[in-house]
Amino acid sequence: MKEMDENTATIVELIQTTNLIDRPDLLALAKVAFIDYVASTLAASKEPKVVATAQQLATRKRVAHNRKLIGQPYEAAPEYAAFFNGFCSHYLDYDDAQANIAGHFSTVLFSVLLSVAKPTDMVLDILTAYVVGAELEGLLGAYLNPQHKLVGWHSTGTIGPLGGAAALAKLAKLTASETAQLLSLAGTQSAGMAFQAGSDTKPLHAGLAARNAVFAFWLLQETKLTANQNVFNNETGWLKTLGAVDIEPTQLQSQWLQPGQIKEPGLWMKLHPYCSAAICGASACEKIRKQYLVPRGYSWADIERVTFHFPPKADTALRYSAPQSGQEGRFSMEFVGWQMLALGHIEDDLFKQASVPEGFVESLQAGRFCRKHDLPEVAKDVRITKVTVQVKDGQEFSYMETAPLGSPANPFTADILSIKLANATSTKMSETLLAVMKDWPQGTMAEILKLL
Amino acid sequence: MKEMDENTATIVELIQTTNLIDRPDLLALAKVAFIDYVASTLAASKEPKVVATAQQLATRKRVAHNRKLIGQPYEAAPEYAAFFNGFCSHYLDYDDAQANIAGHFSTVLFSVLLSVAKPTDMVLDILTAYVVGAELEGLLGAYLNPQHKLVGWHSTGTIGPLGGAAALAKLAKLTASETAQLLSLAGTQSAGMAFQAGSDTKPLHAGLAARNAVFAFWLLQETKLTANQNVFNNETGWLKTLGAVDIEPTQLQSQWLQPGQIKEPGLWMKLHPYCSAAICGASACEKIRKQYLVPRGYSWADIERVTFHFPPKADTALRYSAPQSGQEGRFSMEFVGWQMLALGHIEDDLFKQASVPEGFVESLQAGRFCRKHDLPEVAKDVRITKVTVQVKDGQEFSYMETAPLGSPANPFTADILSIKLANATSTKMSETLLAVMKDWPQGTMAEILKLL
Repeated sequence: MKEMDENTATIVELIQTTNLIDRPDLLALAKVAFIDYVASTLAASKEPKVVATAQQLATRKRVAHNRKLIGQPYEAAPEYAAFFNGFCSHYLDYDDAQANIAGHFSTVLFSVLLSVAKPTDMVLDILTAYVVGAELEGLLGAYLNPQHKLVGWHSTGTIGPLGGAAALAKLAKLTASETAQLLSLAGTQSAGMAFQAGSDTKPLHAGLAARNAVFAFWLLQETKLTANQNVFNNETGWLKTLGAVDIEPTQLQSQWLQPGQIKEPGLWMKLHPYCSAAICGASACEKIRKQYLVPRGYSWADIERVTFHFPPKADTALRYSAPQSGQEGRFSMEFVGWQMLALGHIEDDLFKQASVPEGFVESLQAGRFCRKHDLPEVAKDVRITKVTVQVKDGQEFSYMETAPLGSPANPFTADILSIKLANATSTKMSETLLAVMKDWPQGTMAEILKLL
Repeated sequence: MKEMDENTATIVELIQTTNLIDRPDLLALAKVAFIDYVASTLAASKEPKVVATAQQLATRKRVAHNRKLIGQPYEAAPEYAAFFNGFCSHYLDYDDAQANIAGHFSTVLFSVLLSVAKPTDMVLDILTAYVVGAELEGLLGAYLNPQHKLVGWHSTGTIGPLGGAAALAKLAKLTASETAQLLSLAGTQSAGMAFQAGSDTKPLHAGLAARNAVFAFWLLQETKLTANQNVFNNETGWLKTLGAVDIEPTQLQSQWLQPGQIKEPGLWMKLHPYCSAAICGASACEKIRKQYLVPRGYSWADIERVTFHFPPKADTALRYSAPQSGQEGRFSMEFVGWQMLALGHIEDDLFKQASVPEGFVESLQAGRFCRKHDLPEVAKDVRITKVTVQVKDGQEFSYMETAPLGSPANPFTADILSIKLANATSTKMSETLLAVMKDWPQGTMAEILKLL
């Protein structure tokens, strides 16, 4: 078993020594991320594929240590609970996202942590483990992207297992050698390709990442198998294989929690279950409608043309310009923009319909939408969309959005968060959950584990 | 769910239409591979880490469909049986290898097939499914290597899940769409990095590959989740992400089973559990000893210097020139060569000792070994080692080996195979197993499943 290299030793030490008692900023953000995670997971809990998956996983049990599948009446072996909760929380693409990883943190990390959390665990320790996992994922993502994404990887699956392993190592207070081996065993399972976008296997990647980290944890704990401790070495290590990237220990130390990946570039959270690449455009449509159209008495029938302006390639993920189903519509700027301008709001149920509404089809056929890539290139942590609405009488209204509600610069208020949670379940359940979390990060996990 | 591209459609059709009734050559090779697989697995079945892993997996059950762990008194959920059998059969590095994949076929494929095989399944169908899986792995490996290996991937883990998926699709007679989705879901789980060599996680890659293929199979069968059907498309597909490689349907068709990857470049099988990169050198030592040293009355004490000549980088896997433990000695040309020249044979138990014998240490300290890279470059499916032994009285003897026993050009006889099997278990058990397989590929799996 090879010795620990300097990069790995540095990362292991950063994981082991992180203490967030003096970082209320990060703990508060982690709590928000947890509430958003619960809302995203519960919102998907009645989807037919999600229920079918839960039923099948319920046939896979351990002799002990089975865990609840969130929002389901079933338990399964811990790695399958992590698998299910990851899959479910990412199923609607309703969970948080971050720019450096170009993927999703919380779906993997909280699924991993909940699969091992005990009622006696301190909330502070769970949130600290989450922040540690997110920090590692964000830093690794920054090293690898954008190349990693462009080559065809889905980072939620490739980087996720390492974040999960870091979180587990932190929570379980593993030794340095155990931590390095857990990172190594999780890292050698990095997988997930972008060609799965648009199928159930894209959210499955979050589940697989969570399962792989948790199963690696159990395996190392129970069998004393070895994994090489030099996972981040600059000659043959994980970053070398995935991206031919070198890292430097002092650079890692200076970046760690300065100020923290969940704070900067920060987490994007969603009010509605559609692709985050459409959020700026939707917000611009909403503002144009409120500020210009409604006051002037214009309705959708008065609009000649809607132009969505993006930086080059910024709409790659929005690959359906003429979606036929609600599922495809999640990845369509046109469908999201149409809802905002024609209906005045986003209707989540439309994303679940087998076909899109007649009014939208007519608008498509009339050629009322257009995309342009005429905004300048932006840094990878910047999102920007401009919308121009041309009215039949010749008037034109534009709005450029960079900080829509849910973005790091314009985060959810407590009220918005409670509305998202209530929509996913019920007002009563939302109130109960929030009451239990009221004093976080104080207290233990006992109450929340009973409710999930 | 994206439509099937031409590459994927071609591969799916090749899987579905393969019929080996007129290919007794491939069926005979597949039977040999199965016997060798069983021997390799049983040989590892009492190793402490293997037993510990079996005990832990036995705590993970399904409500139904649990499967035997080979050589153990336990059952587990089918994906965990595949996981265990893959890990165990690769644990000693005693299983077959192939040049195009630059990795191991049978450890993954038979572990996958045994996890779903029913007593009523025809042996012909199992062996056909094996050949189909191996064919796909070999072809994909030829596309990706040597770059894939040089970048740091371990193909047993990356390519293995696709072979496993192809074998499962063939055995279960999946439809074209189901086959494409199973390949897709397995391929998006491709993982395993070469930096794990020398730790327990290297053999674990075989187990993980088998588990991932089997779990994907159950998931698709039971939940009707979707995976994109364009896994091999030339724009964003699996080969593109892993190796930026284009493939062409007519090329695939012309290569498929022409003559068959397990026939050419063919399978390398091992008589002893050490790295296959040392097999040619060991064989050359054996021949020098028998042909020159013994007839002239020379013993190890008379030898001044042993030189191992390789093509450039051909000894990369033999990374311990001064191994301290038996485990390191598996990857040492010097240790293997010393056994052959000093003891006259390979002693398997020496690879399990915590330290290497005194006599070997003295030989190392006396500087009696030397490696040179003075042979010309060779094609990737060629292995060659020359050994020169210099005796103290000034005489020199050389032998150049390219086709040692167990290589495709010099395959195991039935006798050698039965000796490997008997060594792994007992003469009686070997006879019983071989008697059951006597008429293969005729008959069903009923008898063999009872014995494993």
